[in-house]
Amino acid sequence: MDRHLRSAVMTNLMLDSALNYARQNQAAHLSRLCDWLRIPSISTTPEHAPDVRCAADFAANFLRELGMDKVEVRKTTGHPVVYAEHIQPATANLPTLLIYGHFDVQPADPLEAWTRPPFEPTVDGNNLYARGASDDKGQAFAILAALESYLKTSGKLPVNIKVLLEGEEEITSPSLIPYIQQHADELRADAILIADQDMLDPQHPVVMWGLRGILYVEIEATGPARDLHSGTFGGGVDNPFNVLVRLLAQLQDSDTRRILIPGFYDKVEELNDKERALISQAPINDDVGLYLTGAPKLGGEVGYPLAERVSVRPTFDVHGIAGGFTGEGSKTVIPAKATAKVSLRLVPHQDPDEVFEALTSHLKSICPPTVTLNVRAIGKAVPVKVDYKHPAVQAAAKAYELGFGYKPIYLRGGGSLPIVHDMIDVLSKPNEEIPVVMIGFGLPDDGTHSPNEKFHLPNFYHGIETVIHYLDLFSHV
Amino acid sequence: MDRHLRSAVMTNLMLDSALNYARQNQAAHLSRLCDWLRIPSISTTPEHAPDVRCAADFAANFLRELGMDKVEVRKTTGHPVVYAEHIQPATANLPTLLIYGHFDVQPADPLEAWTRPPFEPTVDGNNLYARGASDDKGQAFAILAALESYLKTSGKLPVNIKVLLEGEEEITSPSLIPYIQQHADELRADAILIADQDMLDPQHPVVMWGLRGILYVEIEATGPARDLHSGTFGGGVDNPFNVLVRLLAQLQDSDTRRILIPGFYDKVEELNDKERALISQAPINDDVGLYLTGAPKLGGEVGYPLAERVSVRPTFDVHGIAGGFTGEGSKTVIPAKATAKVSLRLVPHQDPDEVFEALTSHLKSICPPTVTLNVRAIGKAVPVKVDYKHPAVQAAAKAYELGFGYKPIYLRGGGSLPIVHDMIDVLSKPNEEIPVVMIGFGLPDDGTHSPNEKFHLPNFYHGIETVIHYLDLFSHV
Repeated sequence: MDRHLRSAVMTNLMLDSALNYARQNQAAHLSRLCDWLRIPSISTTPEHAPDVRCAADFAANFLRELGMDKVEVRKTTGHPVVYAEHIQPATANLPTLLIYGHFDVQPADPLEAWTRPPFEPTVDGNNLYARGASDDKGQAFAILAALESYLKTSGKLPVNIKVLLEGEEEITSPSLIPYIQQHADELRADAILIADQDMLDPQHPVVMWGLRGILYVEIEATGPARDLHSGTFGGGVDNPFNVLVRLLAQLQDSDTRRILIPGFYDKVEELNDKERALISQAPINDDVGLYLTGAPKLGGEVGYPLAERVSVRPTFDVHGIAGGFTGEGSKTVIPAKATAKVSLRLVPHQDPDEVFEALTSHLKSICPPTVTLNVRAIGKAVPVKVDYKHPAVQAAAKAYELGFGYKPIYLRGGGSLPIVHDMIDVLSKPNEEIPVVMIGFGLPDDGTHSPNEKFHLPNFYHGIETVIHYLDLFSHV
Repeated sequence: MDRHLRSAVMTNLMLDSALNYARQNQAAHLSRLCDWLRIPSISTTPEHAPDVRCAADFAANFLRELGMDKVEVRKTTGHPVVYAEHIQPATANLPTLLIYGHFDVQPADPLEAWTRPPFEPTVDGNNLYARGASDDKGQAFAILAALESYLKTSGKLPVNIKVLLEGEEEITSPSLIPYIQQHADELRADAILIADQDMLDPQHPVVMWGLRGILYVEIEATGPARDLHSGTFGGGVDNPFNVLVRLLAQLQDSDTRRILIPGFYDKVEELNDKERALISQAPINDDVGLYLTGAPKLGGEVGYPLAERVSVRPTFDVHGIAGGFTGEGSKTVIPAKATAKVSLRLVPHQDPDEVFEALTSHLKSICPPTVTLNVRAIGKAVPVKVDYKHPAVQAAAKAYELGFGYKPIYLRGGGSLPIVHDMIDVLSKPNEEIPVVMIGFGLPDDGTHSPNEKFHLPNFYHGIETVIHYLDLFSHV
């Protein structure tokens, strides 16, 4: 056999062995994933920092067991990252894939809304319930299980692999950006693979060719020097809550739901016809939207179909307002201050820094002198657009077809992975943008960021096989 | 001596003895008040119900020790009331005064803002720090100490007294209203005395000739069936927080601060010239307002002076909005629902039930179909206006002058004592409204309903003497 043919046969033997291994070890993979999910690695609350570290150690131990090289839990300015690699001699001439995932999770509150404890994983029918089951431990573990399936059967992988797992994705990755800049040479690769997203349903895997950005801010209105009795002082001072509510209301048109920050839409890219057609192929319609959300009626920006509103159009969301009294019963307080947490989802080519400036200066211009305003950015992500025609992306489509039995659809993602833009920025070769291959095995009703998060177990197992296929296909790209 | 002269001399002896007793027992009265303040009798949180009961028992024991009759802690549909009386034979022909006060307190949150524990009373200089020190245990105890000063020296009081203390004032007295209706005959009196308000400063006692009413409501906007990830669904559904914020913003004009509920001002009574002049005598100006509140600038309804804005003009206040994420860090959630706690202070002759109907129907008319709206009244008080020329009210002015050494000013109260209207309603004689004599020994910077509540001790001691004088003066009314 010539070298190429032998290589192809060898690969095929490796592939079959890995697939068989994955099928025979589903229970073991599930059990191991549950161990990871028991660690409440909530990155946003400082008291959980030891748990985030613990989740990093767990991943590193697992990668070490597989026989990956250079496995390390590395310090950053925030939560640690996990690095591992499997690089074959240059003579093998294999392409290199950088795998990214995250082991931190969202807070579990409101706790009382969970029917099962968020950090005691429970299997019920086809679903695994736990915070992080879908976002992202379950999906990241599908990749790790695919690596295991090759390494335990063939002692090697069909491509060079670098693994980078972080613990700050849910807080917009503040430490990972400098980390990547400092480790750019070590992380150099031909493509990046990420599994941290939803399919539309178990028959519709998704290749994601872009992501919205985000600007997450806290807007704080401070009025009186202390909380006041609204009987004694009501009508004498402006209540910071009243003022803040009016300011927030002025950021979005009540009819069109368009965002009323001057210049906000200036850089928003409208889709071309091909792109619009690609997105319209998705079986996303209002009935599906109503079913998935349970809302009495859909909403959002007037003039765009649902599939575009949730992916390629910017949004404004109030996530909560701290301050005042929200306990049971009544308290007649004029709060000294009110602090809103809001975010703007951004689309190519909006810049979070520019939007922050525009938002801040607009708010200051409409804020009455009766309160002091403080606007603070606590999270930013630059929107991303990927060339969906790139072979590394097309290989993902083929892998889905082999792993799930269904052709994927091509969508732009409505969520934000802040690190994607930065990885592209730092790791692209001159004149050639590194392709970011975004796949995922979640489902829209997984309840990521909500109570009762779950992961659909058939997707977990098909996901492992999809990644096994992808590594095989990527070796030929 | 003829009967009238002997009576006058006797009264004077009684008065002097009582005043002397009060002056000699200041430390004992303070100590006893502190015992009462140690009981965290927060009426709004169900887990503190036993503490409210405990505060009732404390008051009853004290009244029993004084030798008051018929002392009882009585069950209601909610927290208990305390009743006691001291009625002399009909031949004595004494007028009857009904004393009202409350032993429940506001919640102490935010706890972290207290520099001393709220339920461990601390004296620092001239101030006593504790939740309830000013509102209302300290002021109610000043009345009880005045009763003690007579009873321990003369064995009797110069007038007939009925004492009614309740434990639900801070939650708008839901059980007291039916209680008063059921016990109308027992409570029958010639006037009602209440000490539960502020002076302007230690040189400006206040006779209160009216109170604002209140409508306290929860406005709940429910959108999706569960919390959603704003990346996946943002732009697809209306965020209930965004909608609620817009609805609240539409309830108040951003320039004039007038309330935008249709018909809201229809029944609002404008002051006549005499009333306006009376209120304008108060040394309430913008400098005082800025000093007391620490706000960067005063606010409120355009076109009315501060003294009127905080007392005879209606207001709208947002007290807090529950739902979503308000913890540290960021969480990109579209909350399933958002619930605002808001109140409207009402003025004569606005009716809380009518305003509730108008508010609810207005909100429903402007609410988009993307959320389900639920408006719930959780507290109501009818506004009150008292005839400030009534002799029982004028006696209070004289008592202040004797107790504090300063003539009082006549103000309308900005706060709400829901029970006042109902007491007037139930206890007035046909064709003659029972006068409600509203006095008080708090100060505007006492921080009632706020962290670090305190009571100015000189006011406590002058207050006891004022009540001693009032009982003497009331015997001649």
